[in-house]
Amino acid sequence: MSKNIKYAVGVDLGGTFIKFGLVTSDGKIVKKTFLDSKANEGPEKVIKQIKRGIKDLLDKSDYKITGIGIGAPGVISIKRGTVENPPNLPGWGKIHLGKIISKEFKLDTFVENDANAAAIGEMIFGAGKKLNSFLMITLGTGVGGGIIFERKLFRGETGAAGEIGHLSIDYKGDKCNCGSFGCIEVYAGNSYLINRVVKEYESNKSSLIFSLVNNNFDSLTPKVISDAVIQGDQFANSIIQQLGNHIGYALASVANLMDITSIIIGGGVAGFGEKLFDSIELSMRERVLKSLQPRIKILPAKLSNDAGIKGASSLVFYKN
Amino acid sequence: MSKNIKYAVGVDLGGTFIKFGLVTSDGKIVKKTFLDSKANEGPEKVIKQIKRGIKDLLDKSDYKITGIGIGAPGVISIKRGTVENPPNLPGWGKIHLGKIISKEFKLDTFVENDANAAAIGEMIFGAGKKLNSFLMITLGTGVGGGIIFERKLFRGETGAAGEIGHLSIDYKGDKCNCGSFGCIEVYAGNSYLINRVVKEYESNKSSLIFSLVNNNFDSLTPKVISDAVIQGDQFANSIIQQLGNHIGYALASVANLMDITSIIIGGGVAGFGEKLFDSIELSMRERVLKSLQPRIKILPAKLSNDAGIKGASSLVFYKN
Repeated sequence: MSKNIKYAVGVDLGGTFIKFGLVTSDGKIVKKTFLDSKANEGPEKVIKQIKRGIKDLLDKSDYKITGIGIGAPGVISIKRGTVENPPNLPGWGKIHLGKIISKEFKLDTFVENDANAAAIGEMIFGAGKKLNSFLMITLGTGVGGGIIFERKLFRGETGAAGEIGHLSIDYKGDKCNCGSFGCIEVYAGNSYLINRVVKEYESNKSSLIFSLVNNNFDSLTPKVISDAVIQGDQFANSIIQQLGNHIGYALASVANLMDITSIIIGGGVAGFGEKLFDSIELSMRERVLKSLQPRIKILPAKLSNDAGIKGASSLVFYKN
Repeated sequence: MSKNIKYAVGVDLGGTFIKFGLVTSDGKIVKKTFLDSKANEGPEKVIKQIKRGIKDLLDKSDYKITGIGIGAPGVISIKRGTVENPPNLPGWGKIHLGKIISKEFKLDTFVENDANAAAIGEMIFGAGKKLNSFLMITLGTGVGGGIIFERKLFRGETGAAGEIGHLSIDYKGDKCNCGSFGCIEVYAGNSYLINRVVKEYESNKSSLIFSLVNNNFDSLTPKVISDAVIQGDQFANSIIQQLGNHIGYALASVANLMDITSIIIGGGVAGFGEKLFDSIELSMRERVLKSLQPRIKILPAKLSNDAGIKGASSLVFYKN
């Protein structure tokens, strides 16, 4: 253990699990653990779990800890370190999570929206190390995003910037959970994606996608689609192609608006691999203003494993 | 003439006319003039016209001039003061306009994209005086935009940011001049708007819009639509409503992405008035993320007359 290495605690607060990691300033996890969130037992219980996890992590270790970073869902006030109405943590209202954890461990504590934490993580440790500006987009249950402009998180007026999942690509499109229509999340969010596949069952009955799950739609996941792609299934291929096109259209609009042309894509799409990335790049190029075309860059995220923990811990090194 | 007042020259370079004004640091025009651009005679002629106009303006006056600001179409490199391929000025290529004018008059010269200049103008002199951040959108032949974030122009990576006209609201929509589909310019740009009206002629023959121009489609302008609205024409009303909705949808996406919720709207739509603004606000509110709703603000631009000259001159005071 070199004395020059700095350490941070990264906490990835999710609705089901809380993940904890001790991370070096060059992005290596030296120790990690996880606990149930126990979200249904209310915020006090969740906070107890967070404290317990951090204690476990620090127990019997003499690492010099620089601070604690927490990536949390929902609206975060960075100045006050509050977490407000996180969607998967019932009963929260507004909680000064930063203050509570900082007081408990006598360590500087930084709380950030999980999508923004992921973007900072990629900038400090990952695919954005050498990029001045980029857009991070995370494909999962929802579609999250974070904007890095000139090596700083672009937070907008209140810290809510980066919601690329709720950029609409079709104002007459399907309804989104947010209340709007045709949001990119409606095309790329996991459950929406599965629904689209199911809707096209009748005309694609022979696709591997369906035989892989014995026609049991409840077992359909993005992983299944990805497996079918790998085995050369045509319908699965067309689904990925479409998905890539939709994402590319949204990214073209973002690039035109913000003049940011490097995109890092993360989340549970690693399995879709090059096919998805190629189709995103192609459709973005096709639709973006000509003057921006030569600069388009689509990169896979590098923190795929433990992205949450690393992203959260990066908040400490970003701030320091 | 108080000695404390600063003066700047504002030059609004257009494809048909070049407008010149001597503007005080509090946004009053004390003298103005204009000349033909003579764009068809090539860039050297246009530059001659610019020099001539500025000379005329400064002739026989002993104002203490702080600098010259030029608003120009096309891609501008702010660092080098170059103007590159402005769409309505044939044969330009890349010209160091800033250097040329600065050398001629021995005055600091600032060149900016006209849409960005308009945004800075509204910040320094107009509706954005008290706003920390806002999006300026200019409706005209095209749809331009400029982003002010924390009292600074958000230029993106290369100075091309703010092209809200090329944010697509329907990826399957009509083709835009830029090559993409469903861009907001396709809905709100003047000629597109007129085309939409003409397309609906058959089912709206009795509309005032058409009788006002004796069914001569070539005479249709936004002003005619606006006149019909004022006289209570239902079809004209529905056109404005639709226009407002489309703009509102685009603005909701921008707000979700950038967390900027104050919008200043300028350009040749003053005549459409409150009806347009109300419908923009309503549809933006309807589609934006719930957490942003309470902060939505739609404001008319204040520099409507001489916006080009004032916007250009504001570059001098912005920089100084």
